[in-house]
Amino acid sequence: VAGDTRDRILTATAELFRRHGYNGTGLKQVTTAAGAPFGSLYHFFPGGKDELTDAVLRTSGEAYRQLFEVIFDAADDAASAMSDFFDGAAEVLEQTDFIDACPIATVAAEVASTNDRLRRTTADVFDSWITTGTDRLEGAGLPADRAHDLAITVISALEGAFILSRAHRSGDPLRAAGRLMRALVAAELERSATTGR
Amino acid sequence: VAGDTRDRILTATAELFRRHGYNGTGLKQVTTAAGAPFGSLYHFFPGGKDELTDAVLRTSGEAYRQLFEVIFDAADDAASAMSDFFDGAAEVLEQTDFIDACPIATVAAEVASTNDRLRRTTADVFDSWITTGTDRLEGAGLPADRAHDLAITVISALEGAFILSRAHRSGDPLRAAGRLMRALVAAELERSATTGR
Repeated sequence: VAGDTRDRILTATAELFRRHGYNGTGLKQVTTAAGAPFGSLYHFFPGGKDELTDAVLRTSGEAYRQLFEVIFDAADDAASAMSDFFDGAAEVLEQTDFIDACPIATVAAEVASTNDRLRRTTADVFDSWITTGTDRLEGAGLPADRAHDLAITVISALEGAFILSRAHRSGDPLRAAGRLMRALVAAELERSATTGR
Repeated sequence: VAGDTRDRILTATAELFRRHGYNGTGLKQVTTAAGAPFGSLYHFFPGGKDELTDAVLRTSGEAYRQLFEVIFDAADDAASAMSDFFDGAAEVLEQTDFIDACPIATVAAEVASTNDRLRRTTADVFDSWITTGTDRLEGAGLPADRAHDLAITVISALEGAFILSRAHRSGDPLRAAGRLMRALVAAELERSATTGR
């Protein structure tokens, strides 16, 4: 039951971040949304908002990394995996009234210049995504350095397209970016097959 | 002199947004940073924080759009313009202690689900960038629909790479995304020259 309360607090915080971001989320809102007594927050997270946010970012970041793996490994090929992932993200946004589908990026932007501990946490999560993306793109046939740059680019395009799609309340920017990430991955694989680089 | 105070308030707010975002910026901080009496804020912006933010987003967004035009028009070609712009953004971040170089994206992510007026403002600014990017990419030889999707993708990659670069306190993610946006634009132009589409 103690584990349940901790999980409810993590889930409620992640949901609040998706709507309001880090600075827009208060701890009182968190315990209310989690149906937990206010004191329980400091019981599970003695370091308060920073420790709670760190746990939310790491837990949500790992879940999102695994989702990418599942979609990538189910796709016909590396290029199709891109449009599968971006199209799926567009659908999720449309079905959830355009609350943030990425659990990390808004908080990352908010804390980058103001909270060095949480900035490092977001960098760790992005690194774990970059490592997984690089690994899969190397597996598809790209040299490590090009796979690494391409993974960074795909993650960047995804994060930016979330912002545009939410601003426009339309999944179309995500779908456009997905089509072009698909074209980019195909072009990089073809170039590598031709040049041996 | 009245114009000066209004401008100082706009500039101070834009600077505070680059470090703290929208929710992390208070009006008292704004007037202190602007060296303006608190009451002057409501004199120039009777609608308070929303009206001030709307003005900051539109002013900064237009300045950034013009910067893109200047860099694009000075570049050797459309593909090089991409790396020129992303490399320049990486340098600006590195020289300014990684405070946000984009005046819009963090605020856009913060307000998307919570403030419909400001959400629309961010959509307007993104639309103005998409229009300029589409125009330049059409000028380089792409059909309108592909130029439009590519402009959305480049802006998305830029916004996302800002987040990764700030999280890592390194311009490298921006440079990686710039190299691949250059490759993508070159590949799209080549494909269009070959297929007539």
